[in-house]
Amino acid sequence: MTEPLPDLLVAPIVQAALAEDLGRAGDITSQACVPANARLSAVFAARQPGAVAGLSCARLAIAALDPHAHFAAAVDDGAHVEAGAVLARVEANARALLGAERVALNLLGRLCGIASLTRTYVAAVEGTRALIVDTRKTTPGLRALEKYAVRCGGGVNHRFGLDDAILIKDNHIAACGSVGEAVRRAKAAAGHLTKVEVEIDGLTQLEEALKYGPDVVMLDNFSLDDLAEAVRRTAGRAVLEASGGVNLATVRAIAETGVDVISVGALTHSASVLDIGLDAA
Amino acid sequence: MTEPLPDLLVAPIVQAALAEDLGRAGDITSQACVPANARLSAVFAARQPGAVAGLSCARLAIAALDPHAHFAAAVDDGAHVEAGAVLARVEANARALLGAERVALNLLGRLCGIASLTRTYVAAVEGTRALIVDTRKTTPGLRALEKYAVRCGGGVNHRFGLDDAILIKDNHIAACGSVGEAVRRAKAAAGHLTKVEVEIDGLTQLEEALKYGPDVVMLDNFSLDDLAEAVRRTAGRAVLEASGGVNLATVRAIAETGVDVISVGALTHSASVLDIGLDAA
Amino acid sequence: MTEPLPDLLVAPIVQAALAEDLGRAGDITSQACVPANARLSAVFAARQPGAVAGLSCARLAIAALDPHAHFAAAVDDGAHVEAGAVLARVEANARALLGAERVALNLLGRLCGIASLTRTYVAAVEGTRALIVDTRKTTPGLRALEKYAVRCGGGVNHRFGLDDAILIKDNHIAACGSVGEAVRRAKAAAGHLTKVEVEIDGLTQLEEALKYGPDVVMLDNFSLDDLAEAVRRTAGRAVLEASGGVNLATVRAIAETGVDVISVGALTHSASVLDIGLDAA
Amino acid sequence: MTEPLPDLLVAPIVQAALAEDLGRAGDITSQACVPANARLSAVFAARQPGAVAGLSCARLAIAALDPHAHFAAAVDDGAHVEAGAVLARVEANARALLGAERVALNLLGRLCGIASLTRTYVAAVEGTRALIVDTRKTTPGLRALEKYAVRCGGGVNHRFGLDDAILIKDNHIAACGSVGEAVRRAKAAAGHLTKVEVEIDGLTQLEEALKYGPDVVMLDNFSLDDLAEAVRRTAGRAVLEASGGVNLATVRAIAETGVDVISVGALTHSASVLDIGLDAA
Amino acid sequence: MTEPLPDLLVAPIVQAALAEDLGRAGDITSQACVPANARLSAVFAARQPGAVAGLSCARLAIAALDPHAHFAAAVDDGAHVEAGAVLARVEANARALLGAERVALNLLGRLCGIASLTRTYVAAVEGTRALIVDTRKTTPGLRALEKYAVRCGGGVNHRFGLDDAILIKDNHIAACGSVGEAVRRAKAAAGHLTKVEVEIDGLTQLEEALKYGPDVVMLDNFSLDDLAEAVRRTAGRAVLEASGGVNLATVRAIAETGVDVISVGALTHSASVLDIGLDAA
Amino acid sequence: MTEPLPDLLVAPIVQAALAEDLGRAGDITSQACVPANARLSAVFAARQPGAVAGLSCARLAIAALDPHAHFAAAVDDGAHVEAGAVLARVEANARALLGAERVALNLLGRLCGIASLTRTYVAAVEGTRALIVDTRKTTPGLRALEKYAVRCGGGVNHRFGLDDAILIKDNHIAACGSVGEAVRRAKAAAGHLTKVEVEIDGLTQLEEALKYGPDVVMLDNFSLDDLAEAVRRTAGRAVLEASGGVNLATVRAIAETGVDVISVGALTHSASVLDIGLDAA
Repeated sequence: MTEPLPDLLVAPIVQAALAEDLGRAGDITSQACVPANARLSAVFAARQPGAVAGLSCARLAIAALDPHAHFAAAVDDGAHVEAGAVLARVEANARALLGAERVALNLLGRLCGIASLTRTYVAAVEGTRALIVDTRKTTPGLRALEKYAVRCGGGVNHRFGLDDAILIKDNHIAACGSVGEAVRRAKAAAGHLTKVEVEIDGLTQLEEALKYGPDVVMLDNFSLDDLAEAVRRTAGRAVLEASGGVNLATVRAIAETGVDVISVGALTHSASVLDIGLDAA
Repeated sequence: MTEPLPDLLVAPIVQAALAEDLGRAGDITSQACVPANARLSAVFAARQPGAVAGLSCARLAIAALDPHAHFAAAVDDGAHVEAGAVLARVEANARALLGAERVALNLLGRLCGIASLTRTYVAAVEGTRALIVDTRKTTPGLRALEKYAVRCGGGVNHRFGLDDAILIKDNHIAACGSVGEAVRRAKAAAGHLTKVEVEIDGLTQLEEALKYGPDVVMLDNFSLDDLAEAVRRTAGRAVLEASGGVNLATVRAIAETGVDVISVGALTHSASVLDIGLDAA
Repeated sequence: MTEPLPDLLVAPIVQAALAEDLGRAGDITSQACVPANARLSAVFAARQPGAVAGLSCARLAIAALDPHAHFAAAVDDGAHVEAGAVLARVEANARALLGAERVALNLLGRLCGIASLTRTYVAAVEGTRALIVDTRKTTPGLRALEKYAVRCGGGVNHRFGLDDAILIKDNHIAACGSVGEAVRRAKAAAGHLTKVEVEIDGLTQLEEALKYGPDVVMLDNFSLDDLAEAVRRTAGRAVLEASGGVNLATVRAIAETGVDVISVGALTHSASVLDIGLDAA
Repeated sequence: MTEPLPDLLVAPIVQAALAEDLGRAGDITSQACVPANARLSAVFAARQPGAVAGLSCARLAIAALDPHAHFAAAVDDGAHVEAGAVLARVEANARALLGAERVALNLLGRLCGIASLTRTYVAAVEGTRALIVDTRKTTPGLRALEKYAVRCGGGVNHRFGLDDAILIKDNHIAACGSVGEAVRRAKAAAGHLTKVEVEIDGLTQLEEALKYGPDVVMLDNFSLDDLAEAVRRTAGRAVLEASGGVNLATVRAIAETGVDVISVGALTHSASVLDIGLDAA
Repeated sequence: MTEPLPDLLVAPIVQAALAEDLGRAGDITSQACVPANARLSAVFAARQPGAVAGLSCARLAIAALDPHAHFAAAVDDGAHVEAGAVLARVEANARALLGAERVALNLLGRLCGIASLTRTYVAAVEGTRALIVDTRKTTPGLRALEKYAVRCGGGVNHRFGLDDAILIKDNHIAACGSVGEAVRRAKAAAGHLTKVEVEIDGLTQLEEALKYGPDVVMLDNFSLDDLAEAVRRTAGRAVLEASGGVNLATVRAIAETGVDVISVGALTHSASVLDIGLDAA
Repeated sequence: MTEPLPDLLVAPIVQAALAEDLGRAGDITSQACVPANARLSAVFAARQPGAVAGLSCARLAIAALDPHAHFAAAVDDGAHVEAGAVLARVEANARALLGAERVALNLLGRLCGIASLTRTYVAAVEGTRALIVDTRKTTPGLRALEKYAVRCGGGVNHRFGLDDAILIKDNHIAACGSVGEAVRRAKAAAGHLTKVEVEIDGLTQLEEALKYGPDVVMLDNFSLDDLAEAVRRTAGRAVLEASGGVNLATVRAIAETGVDVISVGALTHSASVLDIGLDAA
């Protein structure tokens, strides 16, 4: 079970999503067709196998329209489920449930999709030392949720933003004149709880980068041979992160070079939703 | 050229995304490594062919950090571009540009991805009468932008929310007792500027639904034969929308049945980002 | 009974109103004069006859200051009440009730005022086919509530905003060159769930407008004779909406011309509040 | 000329109103019918005589959609204008102007309506010592603007909220046991910059109220004779405010009793909008 | 017991503070180290003697993360406590309590610090007629809370903002040409519930200021002799407020000159936090 | 010169502060006494020596009320200034400047106060290896600004929130059973860019803590001898942070024990404002 995010961080996102969907007049279909006091029981059911993330989004969406709804999760975030599995059961005012359905499914499906894709990558590198990590290529407004979904899928989080670690890239190196100078400046500026990572694009930069003691070196678009050579040369002096050109066809071989961390933008920027339905029960 | 959204609707989303990324201390890497007054020129360049949407997001992200930045779009939203094409040129304070880069790319890449996938579907049905439309399966908080991207790709928008048209689904029909009664109630409740659509899951419901004059009938998960038969029977009495099981392998055949509209959830819920880079120039 | 708006759409308006009234120090009078734990029972009573709308505003205002308050509506929104009628009974912490009183009455009185004026118009056209509809001449920030009040009074809603239907006016026609071209462009741009209305200011424009199949034609400031002639000529090819110069002295005659819809800006822009008091009980 | 409110207080209201009107897709009519780069010149013109208030709302609404629009006020807030008078001239992007028109007119018309009604009351008491003041019976969310409009009409503002003066009413007196005790407690609790007003409903309470030195005594629903008697007995020991039953038929006689202040809820809760149009020029 | 602020005014501040502290991933330490369902009992205990203010901040912070937490205040706001005193007992989900701890202590410590410093000043002038009042030198965003803390310490509040009383300072006098003209204009502009204060910097301005009837005269940086002389000359015609150069060494002598009010910016701008701890119990 | 925060992070705080101060009617004193078009030139001048932080707050406050104001900083954030030094010159609309003055000074004075106190601590440890760092004992809503001020004073920032590093305290250790187990769990849960710190309260915990490789060990309330012994035993295996009982009398001796970092809550929770005035020029 992955540690759930506090509702305090999730509820504002859910409420904004409901406001976006309800617009200025609410669910005019249910108002026209469903009696005000009707009740509805339903289950959230997976139509494909996958990893679960974001059940609290569904719970909070329904609760926002019916504070007295009953919502019972059948599994925990982080669980693997098969097609057909029930994720949660709900009993609520019918209009409230129908009004919250799309928002609940949009968030749940997206987060389960990210968790599921993450799990696939994690499985692909099983037995190696490599961790699968995300990037900042997340949906604006949903970063905390999407990075949570990565954790639910067994992945690890890279930076949450520009402010919680230093990551030196090519433009920074150009501004400093050399990779070494860039790392030196970064180490001098970093607080004692801030890690420093530097991205290099070839083996020739490795030794100069390591000289100034970065916590992590990102090996961007390295060949498999170069990755392995970088692991050998670094010899534990820094955490090594492979990035670029990572997909399900390549990730295993990358992991087997001995890198510590493999970052995969696709986890968040290109995951398909997991197909989940809300079925009357 | 697709009509751009007013900046007033886009700017709050961009600013929230920047705040999410800058966190509480801003871009600490650029602060450490890039002089405060350095300038940077760069181009947004497509790494794959696709359809363009969301250039104003990039412009507004950079302007939020450097109000004096120069941003010149090289193409309009709605344009088709080849791999390598320049989308826009920018010259700005270096820290501002680096600080806004990820937010600009996250939004631009996502919207171009949706526009590009939409265009692929639109091309697949070329020569038929069918329009490609989106659904409400959008990212919470980004619905206006994502539906705009669908328009940039040549698609048409379905409902923007629960409040701007009536769409009767199975639960509503169950609550009313019959499909006819559901349409009757909906027509009675709808204002003179509100259209009524009803979803049916078999030909047997068609005639009863049509009797009460819905504007649109959604044919959910119909076989190709049943779609064609529905077109024949309806004979123009309502707009016919095919939905369910639509993908690039099936969409052409669906369109050739003669339906008016084909709705595709994948346009927004499962589009991959278009790969776009910001290259120093 | 009119279908109430979800609390989710009403509560933010109520809370902003309370914040506006409580300012930075709260209700300093009650703090000075009323013991912290005193209780108060009271009734919301109509001082004039009218139609009820907005009881949830009163409930939510009081609940915001005393989550344990008891609030029992005595009638439903949409009901007609006589002078002296009790609308709701409340028992709450005295300071909370006094602190919420003005906000509750301001919202309730305004919405009941709109509902009551609407009902007067609706009654005036009883027996004709004409529906009474509102306009976008609403109070900024309160459109959803005010249009809800129109429904409570038996009226029907026109557009909720610039985005949920097309309404072509003189400036649009001027930009297109002719009324026919304007309707043609609008129909081409409109999605399959978006209706198109065109405003004309004389009979000479009618046939050209109809040629392109608008859903609704607005007859602006037509004489009674011209309205009747427009009904005759249109012969059901479009919904006809009369607007301009509508007041309680003229609305019946307008309705008797056979138009389908009569829009009345005064419903929302010039309704007086219904006089309602909160009386200790 | 009335001192205008800082834009900082007005702009958020205008922007929220625009967002409410533009919805999720913006002005789809103008997008369909008006070229993106078309310009439009127009004037805001009064269709009835009245007092002007709120020109900055119109300016800010248009500027929000076209930062480069030219807006030139022809009169100042506070001015009296005749029917046909031009209030302001504007030249802007046509879509922006049409998209902002309704918001601009809704705010401007409402505020001018309040200013105009206030001016009518002020004129009715000309030559007496009485000031016309507003109440807290304002539109939720618009209090600052509506009270500003009262000032534009020559009126004076009562409390802005529950926190900026003490106003003792019947429930407070009941909680304290007597009017004297209520005033005594209030004076003890009030800071040195906070005034204390007490509402009484009969002459018998006057002397007891005055004994504790309130700044203002509100005479609620007093007969003309009792008002005059209260003026005589008070002899300047407190400001006297008449309230209740005030309308244009009664206000002159009330003023002639010698009271200092007459509060009129109708100024804000029941003013009709002033009819203003935006005419292409 | 000081009258507590309504939760409605306090909760948004507390929630914003929690969001600031939880960031995008929440309390990652407790997630790593504390079981999800662990409970924790603790007490808020004063480590120094002082005056209590802001217990509702602590209650609301914990409730925001655990709606089912038990929180029992052991004293009321406004109480004086000794070192070691228990202020409140709490039993809650362990992660919730640890996640809310810093926000609760930051607000509580600050408000108790202000209350305690205020009480020290109030004690220093005991037996004189002088009231200790605050200024607008408060923390941006916390004015309502900090002025509440002043009340908890036995102080009185000066203006809450620029809008709830008139305070004429040197720049205003310069703009008007003379102190008398400034007061005259202010009195003419002020509503009947708005007090007027004028700041003077020497005895020579006193008589001219008093001639126009200000409610309060602020004597800025007067010597003790001049303060006493001002009291003598004013003879009750206005409230006199001493300001400038007030500290614990000088406040008693200032009070003994007979001024009514002494304003002390340090109450809010330079109070140290009261040292409070959250101890597992 | 300390790297300034992006305006995007500062402006919302400034605007909220202005809204808090302007209330519902704005600066009624200046409206009464200062002509609408009057201009004012002034300087922000230090009345005490200190370190500068937050000039952009003053600039943004004035610009919010007068977008055309001229503001010229005379020094950079991070500079040391003597009493009497001019920090910035401004020329603006007089009402705008007077209306923004208090907000500008409240923010500027507070941030300069924090920077100045930080600098005093930094000076006290000059020549040692110790860095002075802040804590999370900041003002709710102002953390980013206050931690920026610490940097302006030469200090270094500790965690920005609960989410950007792991800091294990006594309650976490209790929940895990031992300090070693707590560090082990934390290291396992931490991402590759997240540092882990553990707080111990005695030398006996040191070796067990170090065994699991924390990045930082916090030595809480250690005696000077124990600090020195911890430095000796650790021998560079972790960064050592002294905390507790740190004040200007003790900080030098603490630094001389050889610890790397000294955290001082007082930097933010108990700094007095720096006395700064806005003087007409």
